[in-house]
Amino acid sequence: MDITIYLNDNKKAVDDFLDQALPPDSTQPQNLHRAMRYSLFAGGKRVRPIMAIAAFEAVGGKSKARPSGRDIIIPVASSLELIHTYSLIHDDLPAMDDDDYRRGKPTNHKVFGEAIAILAGDAMLTIAFDLLSQNKITRKVPPKTLIQIIQELADGAGHLGMIGGQVADIESEGKKVSQTALEYIHRHKTAALIRAAIRIGGLLGGALKADLAALTQYGEDIGLAFQIVDDVLDVVGTREEMGKDVQSDSSRNKKTYPAFFGVERSRQKAYDLMKRGIKSLERFGKKADQLREIARYIVDRRK
Amino acid sequence: MDITIYLNDNKKAVDDFLDQALPPDSTQPQNLHRAMRYSLFAGGKRVRPIMAIAAFEAVGGKSKARPSGRDIIIPVASSLELIHTYSLIHDDLPAMDDDDYRRGKPTNHKVFGEAIAILAGDAMLTIAFDLLSQNKITRKVPPKTLIQIIQELADGAGHLGMIGGQVADIESEGKKVSQTALEYIHRHKTAALIRAAIRIGGLLGGALKADLAALTQYGEDIGLAFQIVDDVLDVVGTREEMGKDVQSDSSRNKKTYPAFFGVERSRQKAYDLMKRGIKSLERFGKKADQLREIARYIVDRRK
Repeated sequence: MDITIYLNDNKKAVDDFLDQALPPDSTQPQNLHRAMRYSLFAGGKRVRPIMAIAAFEAVGGKSKARPSGRDIIIPVASSLELIHTYSLIHDDLPAMDDDDYRRGKPTNHKVFGEAIAILAGDAMLTIAFDLLSQNKITRKVPPKTLIQIIQELADGAGHLGMIGGQVADIESEGKKVSQTALEYIHRHKTAALIRAAIRIGGLLGGALKADLAALTQYGEDIGLAFQIVDDVLDVVGTREEMGKDVQSDSSRNKKTYPAFFGVERSRQKAYDLMKRGIKSLERFGKKADQLREIARYIVDRRK
Repeated sequence: MDITIYLNDNKKAVDDFLDQALPPDSTQPQNLHRAMRYSLFAGGKRVRPIMAIAAFEAVGGKSKARPSGRDIIIPVASSLELIHTYSLIHDDLPAMDDDDYRRGKPTNHKVFGEAIAILAGDAMLTIAFDLLSQNKITRKVPPKTLIQIIQELADGAGHLGMIGGQVADIESEGKKVSQTALEYIHRHKTAALIRAAIRIGGLLGGALKADLAALTQYGEDIGLAFQIVDDVLDVVGTREEMGKDVQSDSSRNKKTYPAFFGVERSRQKAYDLMKRGIKSLERFGKKADQLREIARYIVDRRK
């Protein structure tokens, strides 16, 4: 399997879906819609939706029983990208990380102003849930499953998930924190939504309880590995490769794995997590090959 | 019926529910939880939840067929207050309306800082959907109905509802706008979520299609009347009564009904809307008395 083709194909499917699901630039309120599209189509890799798609496939969600599997999983998985993008817009605000660049382009508030950036984030967070309750999804997904998916998304994104990690991250700036606190930040800020992505794909694909437990282990391990690699790239990457200011973590005295363990031990930690995550997929056989390749891709990536 | 007792009883029921539904101050992330509770328990009147409760009752949601009606409607209605409160926190931010006081207390960002205020708003918006997908609700509400309710909430709060109105409001500052634009702002900024409250109560109470149409008319009329009265009170109220800076609208050259039509004609407009809203309730007989009284209360209130 060529993971690059898999990633590109699914990125395109998610992009196409999001393009027609989001209101056009030309409709009122125009500035809001422009701001949403600006950040949503700024070149994101769609890692979270693709992980949901791969988890869906791992539990057999593309089997004969669900001939229209792809029609269902693409819209559901796309909701994760709305949550992820809103969180980037809000994180970049002057009151938060105060970043001027993201993916090689000026951040949302630099282009549209802070008020619109805040509201565009709010709107995308809201659309994620709106999308999941729309007819194109509800006519294909059993309502009970949909409610479970909504809860996964809200939990992963919420005060005990992604937002909780963001708060801990901000509050740790300039302070000495323990390894436990560092792991709390990473597990919540990043891994919680990736865990949710994996579980959402599994739930939609009809995962059994034991399937879901295995997927959850994978999601937690790869989610943490993802953030560790992000931290490492912030140290070793160049601005050109990353499309944003690098070494911004250390310049703000942010808590990162490299700051704690150095680059090499951090890389090893990410590698170990990848191996454990892949090991938890045994029960799915070849159907989980995409998840395995994604794990390797995440740890080996250079940007 | 004494509407004051009805309002107080239901406010208490919503407050009690929210108190046990929100994470305690003592749990991590503490500052976030403190910030959420600070604004959520700052003395809000719980108008939106109470309107949902009254709409639920209007369609017979407390009938013998649903003996545990109150157990269901209170949690569902409370989600509206989470949305409303998050919107106030974000609206008060320096980048938005830049308000220092709200309900007689310093605004959220004045106490907790801008970063936590943004995240507390995000978290409350997320919790609203989390709450609706939790076991205490899902074991009592048919999942199909719950999905409809989630969609109502997302639509009312989203880019074509409340957020759309907020964008139009911000963008109209310092500009000359038409009566149509003014009505767009009010209908979206305020009426959209009130409309959603009324429809959510109706949906949960088992409203027929014609019931829902009647309730929607009421929600739109009273929602608009509510904002007109708010504008009037901003002109004629005192800071002491209102618990916030008054005449803040005109000082920012905000678009309001009194600025357009004067105080008396605005009052008349609110009164006419109230009458039309009440008229649309005929089909519900005495069961809609609470909605009728709430309409009168909203138009007659002094703060």
